[in-house]
Amino acid sequence: MRISSRFDSGNIIVKSIADPVDIRLQVAQDNGSDFFQWFHFRLSGAKNTPVRMVIENAGAAAYPDGWKDYKAVASEDRENWGRIKTAYENGRLIMSLTPTADAVWIAYFTPYPMARHDALIASCQIDPRVRLDVIGETLDGRDIDRLVAGEPGYGKKVLWIIARQHPGETMAEWAAEGLVERLLDDDDPVARDVLDRAVFHIVPNMNPDGSFRGHLRTNARGINLNREWDKASAENSPEVKAVLDAMDSTGVDLFLDMHGDESLPYNFIAGAEGVPGWTEADQLMLDGYKTELRRFNPDFQTQHGYQVDAPGTADLSIATHWMRHAFGCLAMTLEMPFKDSAITPDADFGWSAGRSMKLGASQLDAIRAVLDRL
Amino acid sequence: MRISSRFDSGNIIVKSIADPVDIRLQVAQDNGSDFFQWFHFRLSGAKNTPVRMVIENAGAAAYPDGWKDYKAVASEDRENWGRIKTAYENGRLIMSLTPTADAVWIAYFTPYPMARHDALIASCQIDPRVRLDVIGETLDGRDIDRLVAGEPGYGKKVLWIIARQHPGETMAEWAAEGLVERLLDDDDPVARDVLDRAVFHIVPNMNPDGSFRGHLRTNARGINLNREWDKASAENSPEVKAVLDAMDSTGVDLFLDMHGDESLPYNFIAGAEGVPGWTEADQLMLDGYKTELRRFNPDFQTQHGYQVDAPGTADLSIATHWMRHAFGCLAMTLEMPFKDSAITPDADFGWSAGRSMKLGASQLDAIRAVLDRL
Amino acid sequence: MRISSRFDSGNIIVKSIADPVDIRLQVAQDNGSDFFQWFHFRLSGAKNTPVRMVIENAGAAAYPDGWKDYKAVASEDRENWGRIKTAYENGRLIMSLTPTADAVWIAYFTPYPMARHDALIASCQIDPRVRLDVIGETLDGRDIDRLVAGEPGYGKKVLWIIARQHPGETMAEWAAEGLVERLLDDDDPVARDVLDRAVFHIVPNMNPDGSFRGHLRTNARGINLNREWDKASAENSPEVKAVLDAMDSTGVDLFLDMHGDESLPYNFIAGAEGVPGWTEADQLMLDGYKTELRRFNPDFQTQHGYQVDAPGTADLSIATHWMRHAFGCLAMTLEMPFKDSAITPDADFGWSAGRSMKLGASQLDAIRAVLDRL
Amino acid sequence: MRISSRFDSGNIIVKSIADPVDIRLQVAQDNGSDFFQWFHFRLSGAKNTPVRMVIENAGAAAYPDGWKDYKAVASEDRENWGRIKTAYENGRLIMSLTPTADAVWIAYFTPYPMARHDALIASCQIDPRVRLDVIGETLDGRDIDRLVAGEPGYGKKVLWIIARQHPGETMAEWAAEGLVERLLDDDDPVARDVLDRAVFHIVPNMNPDGSFRGHLRTNARGINLNREWDKASAENSPEVKAVLDAMDSTGVDLFLDMHGDESLPYNFIAGAEGVPGWTEADQLMLDGYKTELRRFNPDFQTQHGYQVDAPGTADLSIATHWMRHAFGCLAMTLEMPFKDSAITPDADFGWSAGRSMKLGASQLDAIRAVLDRL
Repeated sequence: MRISSRFDSGNIIVKSIADPVDIRLQVAQDNGSDFFQWFHFRLSGAKNTPVRMVIENAGAAAYPDGWKDYKAVASEDRENWGRIKTAYENGRLIMSLTPTADAVWIAYFTPYPMARHDALIASCQIDPRVRLDVIGETLDGRDIDRLVAGEPGYGKKVLWIIARQHPGETMAEWAAEGLVERLLDDDDPVARDVLDRAVFHIVPNMNPDGSFRGHLRTNARGINLNREWDKASAENSPEVKAVLDAMDSTGVDLFLDMHGDESLPYNFIAGAEGVPGWTEADQLMLDGYKTELRRFNPDFQTQHGYQVDAPGTADLSIATHWMRHAFGCLAMTLEMPFKDSAITPDADFGWSAGRSMKLGASQLDAIRAVLDRL
Repeated sequence: MRISSRFDSGNIIVKSIADPVDIRLQVAQDNGSDFFQWFHFRLSGAKNTPVRMVIENAGAAAYPDGWKDYKAVASEDRENWGRIKTAYENGRLIMSLTPTADAVWIAYFTPYPMARHDALIASCQIDPRVRLDVIGETLDGRDIDRLVAGEPGYGKKVLWIIARQHPGETMAEWAAEGLVERLLDDDDPVARDVLDRAVFHIVPNMNPDGSFRGHLRTNARGINLNREWDKASAENSPEVKAVLDAMDSTGVDLFLDMHGDESLPYNFIAGAEGVPGWTEADQLMLDGYKTELRRFNPDFQTQHGYQVDAPGTADLSIATHWMRHAFGCLAMTLEMPFKDSAITPDADFGWSAGRSMKLGASQLDAIRAVLDRL
Repeated sequence: MRISSRFDSGNIIVKSIADPVDIRLQVAQDNGSDFFQWFHFRLSGAKNTPVRMVIENAGAAAYPDGWKDYKAVASEDRENWGRIKTAYENGRLIMSLTPTADAVWIAYFTPYPMARHDALIASCQIDPRVRLDVIGETLDGRDIDRLVAGEPGYGKKVLWIIARQHPGETMAEWAAEGLVERLLDDDDPVARDVLDRAVFHIVPNMNPDGSFRGHLRTNARGINLNREWDKASAENSPEVKAVLDAMDSTGVDLFLDMHGDESLPYNFIAGAEGVPGWTEADQLMLDGYKTELRRFNPDFQTQHGYQVDAPGTADLSIATHWMRHAFGCLAMTLEMPFKDSAITPDADFGWSAGRSMKLGASQLDAIRAVLDRL
Repeated sequence: MRISSRFDSGNIIVKSIADPVDIRLQVAQDNGSDFFQWFHFRLSGAKNTPVRMVIENAGAAAYPDGWKDYKAVASEDRENWGRIKTAYENGRLIMSLTPTADAVWIAYFTPYPMARHDALIASCQIDPRVRLDVIGETLDGRDIDRLVAGEPGYGKKVLWIIARQHPGETMAEWAAEGLVERLLDDDDPVARDVLDRAVFHIVPNMNPDGSFRGHLRTNARGINLNREWDKASAENSPEVKAVLDAMDSTGVDLFLDMHGDESLPYNFIAGAEGVPGWTEADQLMLDGYKTELRRFNPDFQTQHGYQVDAPGTADLSIATHWMRHAFGCLAMTLEMPFKDSAITPDADFGWSAGRSMKLGASQLDAIRAVLDRL
């Protein structure tokens, strides 16, 4: 029996694997940071053997509340990822399964590998309507890829959609893929319509270094990119700086930042309510988008979400806040659950990669509904 | 050079093929009927040869107005069907192209073959949520297939969706396939929601005999099924009778009948306004569905369509009228163009199989929006 | 419960379907002929119901010996066809199964539909190395399709490969598809080599009329094409005449005619041994091909097969005999079993479409091995 | 314009990118070693721009002779890799192209990514006939995957097939995939036969660390695994040690080691002729395998290859030599070209991933031909 994690987005420390029903593991911290919660590893040699794996340091993870009602995902073919029996007790996360194959991959959420990112970029860039623009370089030396779809023109709206500032929130890139795939579907009338009236700037993966390293929340040097927008620097957060520089030349009419949330079992949108100068018009626009999205996609809801900041108290280092502040645009953070959507639960799969893709695709409906008012 | 049509849904009569730039053709009438307009044939031996084909009896077709601004479809791989140069002059339809392969298939609209119908039925019926029910037999001896999706239950709405009463309107079965495919997509939140709250009875092809025979509008004995609903009989219209018999045992809360229209370059819905006893509530419900559908799918519009019947004058032999009359349900006819969608035109493909599938899929959005009010 | 066969290659007569465990059926004779053995039908409404179907006239079929150890094939998804429990007793063929879906298709062998034929032709003809030539028209008006692959040139051998003179022998067209698919695989070194040195003339379906009509052995008017080669006529056998006419202009160095055999559980090749003027060189060439084929494909064997005709007694109406006689070429009939390959049995699938495709593909190996000696 | 290589198997050092027609690059040495020749990078921002890239240190690469007549491969969709204009002059490799997309990937040979390795392993291990055995761990902590296909049994031969000891020789893993894919094809009679009579132990990637690191020839600490077989150690060559340990418990009847060769434009096999105790029987067996392989696959030849070692002088640190020496088995090294197969050239693609897969698959034919004599 063996556990390995030396691969793209792998993260686990094996403390003991002597006893199949008492495998003891720890999740490694993000490099240069205290954050940790993302795990991803391969267990081999346990076919037909009941296995019980304990993540010993789960209680010290970034969001221990996230473990409540949480179930890990597992796959034997790397295509289908289902939920496995998982419990959280006394600060330990206990996962149990009996593999039916020699190897099984286990993760915090369905991984979105860099190889899939590359394939997404490659397939998009050969579409004549798409431009790939490498806007910068990460600290580890990776390209920061921006896809541009649609032709700029008079009266065209400028939309920026970014995903995966927090690399362990892989549902964000699944959603980005779902959105991009629909956007380029020539038969889709909504996609055709929005491409006629807007230009999309999409960064499907804001944090390739953290993604590859198996980080939860930070980039190669342990920086939380979503606390850098008011102070983006080449040293700490070239990923954010590259995007902001590009935005300076395009302007922004709508900004959408896609994330996963460890705790809440809901899809929801957080706005920039606490930003100085927030107006009733801002509120109407934000509420409008959320209402439209809910109309189009029943996995989305508006009842549960983060507590709204008191007026003028918003942390401007956060992307959505900064974008409203600096660009005056409609700025939103889309949060998806690691667990399940409690209003539309799925016992076998919970919230999943496939459902994330659909929610990503549904953004086009909501965008189209509000486009003229941006 | 050769033209053949002895295959599923083939229809052409070759008058002269001696001169490639003056090929003279006629469309055959539906068996036992005067209707004709559907054509489908294979031209071979004309690779790299400029070809001009004239349908001599186009002016006597069922809807000569349909030829205005119309372009035929053609394919060399039987997967991709584009529009070719077509003109209508002095009662003759003139199609021109220079094939780039030895054989090219040419049709009035992208064919939907019986083999694809069988594959659709086969793939659906192995889904545990679907039941296939053969509700009857056509005059030629073909099965009439009904797919039932969703579990009946207290408070569940009963929806009947039928397509292709008129066999030459293949876009109707493309739309049905698009609707069914989405309905069974486990990741689609709208599909999950409507399947929880309704039972779908879907007849993707009401007229397999006419489909196979290459008819435009009628069944094996030349009967227009959409003029049979008040008098369906085993002798003339077993297809309609089978559906009505099945409806008697299920009841109907919503009825949708999918069609193609030869003349109007628009997607639109016709209701049952002229039926005796039509109420304001009926009108609100109908308008509601159309408004919702337009919201979800910009290829659909509500401005152009058939003239509404004067109160009480509706022809009850038509499915939508009869269904409102006999079942009191929301009853609608969805019409799609043979030509293009003038509000959202596509120069290369016009209205297409792929776009029909999307419009079929969008019915689920509109259904969900009105479901509680049915 | 219902049984239907009104579709491409369907063939069954329902005598009684009242009792699920005593369904009584008959196979219809080929039009204008006494031959029958091919059956193909859809049973619906029997999900989870034990069913016993009896073909009452099995004992009068063309090859009653074929029923011994035979098992029918069935499919619920139209993709996977497995064998079902079958017995032959007192002239009756008894098939038993308990469907797990609402509809199940049952056949004598995995069907090869005309729609698949069309798709094969369409996909081949868009390959720049292939020419599609419609060499004639059947009695029902269908195209007779010849694919030509490879460039004629000095020293290039001319190969003619035909399949499915007998339409119920669908394995023959499966084999033809396997051969064509490999021939056009750019990465395959054997295909590249033979395409450099030979021109292939392939008729994947010699008998589209009989195929569509659900015949076992004859064309639209009940003619056994493989008894027409010495007397091919536009009236009776335009399919054979078209091929012979085309051969007259190409010449033939190798002729391969693909068939299925109802009785023998073996893959084997029959030659033209009994033809007048058969030489030792002929025998060596024939034996050489068979030996090579066996070397490349262990499903093929040379021990079992038809009894060889006495010298000079061969029936020249048979394709292989006629071809050796008239063209002096290596001429062979490849026979594949309806049952299984007894030397390489497969309990679940018996001889199958997939295995037929591989045997078809293996012809390229054998052809390459003997090419220089043709 | 930007060049990046921070990804799986990436390798390039950018010296200057200021001038598109004078981009100056260097290939990095394998970690802890002087070897280098493998390169793999992404060029972006050069759509429609003529680009000329010079690898300045090409003359100091491991096999400078390899550059003669060599052409680099490039891809814009990461699926299709064609050859680009390449010249070798004065110790510099000069590659020229005008990209038609925003990004283009360029490499020494079509990459075989770790993600594809994982997908291969995952798809194989869910086949009931396959066992995945992780036989060890690399220095970087990666799993060493062995696939076992076939059931051990009396009289069953034991075959070991390994690939990619030298990580830059990606054609070796392409060949391994081709072999494995065919081996598990249920319709393939050769695969069925050999699986009945032998047990296959396959290590598709002997050197995952070097593969990921973008090495040409060595593992994580710069060790050439194919010089370690007589002294395999946990410290230097755990990959080889793991295989040898596993072999000790299985025994070996045939050993095949798949490689690429930088210089020779041929597919060939090198044997263990110079090993002490080499017999005529050894030679016959080796020649037999080569002769059979050539019979089945015209891309393989026996005329060109390495010079044979003088008797008794073979370097026993090389896998093939050691295997004959220690296990007495038929031991062979299959070499495939980086350039093209000169006897069967392809102007557009040269030797390719697809052709490597076919040559891998053909090993089954040759194995079957010699199996009884092993």
